[in-house]
Amino acid sequence: MTPAIRTVHWGTGAMGSHALRIAARTPGLAVAGVVSQRSAAHAAATLAREAPGAAGAVAGDDLAGVVARCGGADVVLLATHGHLVDLEAQLTAAFELGLRVVCIGEDAIYPAAVDAELARRLERLAQRRGVAMVGTGANPGYVMDWLPMVLTAATAGWTSIRVRRASSLAPFGETVLRSMGVGLSPEQFGAAAARGEIDGHVGYGASVAFLAAGLGVPLEIVDDVCEPIVRERPTELDGHSHPGGVVVGVDQRCRAVAPTGQTVTLEHPQRLGRLEGEEPLHDLIEIDGGELLRARISPALDGGIATVALMINLIPALVNAEPGIHTIASLPLTPFHAPAAQGRVAAANV
Amino acid sequence: MTPAIRTVHWGTGAMGSHALRIAARTPGLAVAGVVSQRSAAHAAATLAREAPGAAGAVAGDDLAGVVARCGGADVVLLATHGHLVDLEAQLTAAFELGLRVVCIGEDAIYPAAVDAELARRLERLAQRRGVAMVGTGANPGYVMDWLPMVLTAATAGWTSIRVRRASSLAPFGETVLRSMGVGLSPEQFGAAAARGEIDGHVGYGASVAFLAAGLGVPLEIVDDVCEPIVRERPTELDGHSHPGGVVVGVDQRCRAVAPTGQTVTLEHPQRLGRLEGEEPLHDLIEIDGGELLRARISPALDGGIATVALMINLIPALVNAEPGIHTIASLPLTPFHAPAAQGRVAAANV
Repeated sequence: MTPAIRTVHWGTGAMGSHALRIAARTPGLAVAGVVSQRSAAHAAATLAREAPGAAGAVAGDDLAGVVARCGGADVVLLATHGHLVDLEAQLTAAFELGLRVVCIGEDAIYPAAVDAELARRLERLAQRRGVAMVGTGANPGYVMDWLPMVLTAATAGWTSIRVRRASSLAPFGETVLRSMGVGLSPEQFGAAAARGEIDGHVGYGASVAFLAAGLGVPLEIVDDVCEPIVRERPTELDGHSHPGGVVVGVDQRCRAVAPTGQTVTLEHPQRLGRLEGEEPLHDLIEIDGGELLRARISPALDGGIATVALMINLIPALVNAEPGIHTIASLPLTPFHAPAAQGRVAAANV
Repeated sequence: MTPAIRTVHWGTGAMGSHALRIAARTPGLAVAGVVSQRSAAHAAATLAREAPGAAGAVAGDDLAGVVARCGGADVVLLATHGHLVDLEAQLTAAFELGLRVVCIGEDAIYPAAVDAELARRLERLAQRRGVAMVGTGANPGYVMDWLPMVLTAATAGWTSIRVRRASSLAPFGETVLRSMGVGLSPEQFGAAAARGEIDGHVGYGASVAFLAAGLGVPLEIVDDVCEPIVRERPTELDGHSHPGGVVVGVDQRCRAVAPTGQTVTLEHPQRLGRLEGEEPLHDLIEIDGGELLRARISPALDGGIATVALMINLIPALVNAEPGIHTIASLPLTPFHAPAAQGRVAAANV
């Protein structure tokens, strides 16, 4: 029998905790440790809550200490930051310890597009230490980039690719909702946006860079719009309560073009739930090359479930991968762990 | 600049000719030769018709001769037979010449499931000669196996996977239509089926074996049904003319189960075109693991376009692959050629 792959979980937020819970019940994986920079006590509490049966697993506030105490590990599941500049020290620490990394930070999907020099530094270190890394996630990383690539592989070429993801903000916490301007009046939203306080979806750059690399076409973003979605009716759902006439989400659109004239349009309206008469929650991928290929996922992929599933399922491929910075497209989709991680993982648990 | 990858096209039927045409206009590929076992003249005529601008390309009735005369090649695009027993000599010939192979024979999707000993022989030879091979196609190879794997990677597990492909037989020639029993009365269909003359879709075994390997779950086919589709109205479309009350296609269903209780159901109704009121042509993939993931491609993927696109797009990954028998799931989805193969490739040209 193949020995279990030993995982260390760095990051104890919603995604990190969810991944820990799934890893703990996935045959072939053994939870070796949990790291929280907040405190060792917080790491220990998370470990006890999410993976109470993980024999020999240790918790702490620094990776090196945890890895030393747990007797070594294979892969770090990194769910801490979205920006590469914040991830660098953590990736470096993991690489220096000879650990592979699966990372769900947005910038990790295609690091070279964010900071080419930093990405080269990481690549060199990964090569030197003989370890591989991959960034993944539902979006960026899957719905708006990898899945379109997979579908494009079955087409005779394309002139335009359009992805529309209409999803719900209901599973998210106050931090995300605030960054979307939820609850503001349209005027307040405008002012907040002018002050740079509305983040919206931050994965367009990563998706476009990943698509460009995967499809072998240089793509440049020429348009990036973020508008408020105002619901005239009051919102009462899943513990969210807002009067009519306020912002309940954002409608973002990004357009990228290639010198060939090929265009990629990524649309991402997100709102608090869905009231009757509003656009159904779904993912739509349209690839036009004369024949139109139209794929629709309905309801929209659950971002939390998909992100964690991809993290877990990429581990076997990562363990066998050549050293360096990978994408999901540069790794073979080998037998993965999903079948073992059976059962319902409700969005509410994400 | 990377030198072009030199392709030899073995097989001059509908798919082989189509692949030749696309390869000839794909930057990064250079058509080096065409092989037809029918005759050298037939190979030459196909080359002249489909790739008139292919400088230095040669045609002939044997692979070794063509490769010697054209000055060497990298990849054989093999579109001759569906059954492994018929493919073995051709694969062996290619491997012995140190050539990689992309093959669209149904059995090539997962050779070990068809004949484990023969597959081992091919694997050993490929290893010895340092060449890689991959089988591909729209179905088997993509709609009913790889695409479900790609989607499953984003789920928290599954208890059942269902794929339904409702496609049209209109693009196919008389040979295929006859193997489906098109034009027969229901009684004649029953008699023909009893004599073993109705082939229907022959890819279920390959798809189930590929899914089992990709998902890491042993699957056994427990049910495999092929029923006639009788259209009461007359059929008048695309040069096909049939009175009402005759067979216009087949409805096939295959069910496989794992010891875990997980089930895979593959449904493939195919009929001549689609009249109003009949089921829309589409591909549906449903993955149930508590949450239901439902992806629908509408209209159904064009089998000819997709098969040829996959052949072409897998070439770069194959050229860089480790020696041995691959699947599309064991190859990285690297930058591929699709964007170059732009423009409309009508189903009628397939």
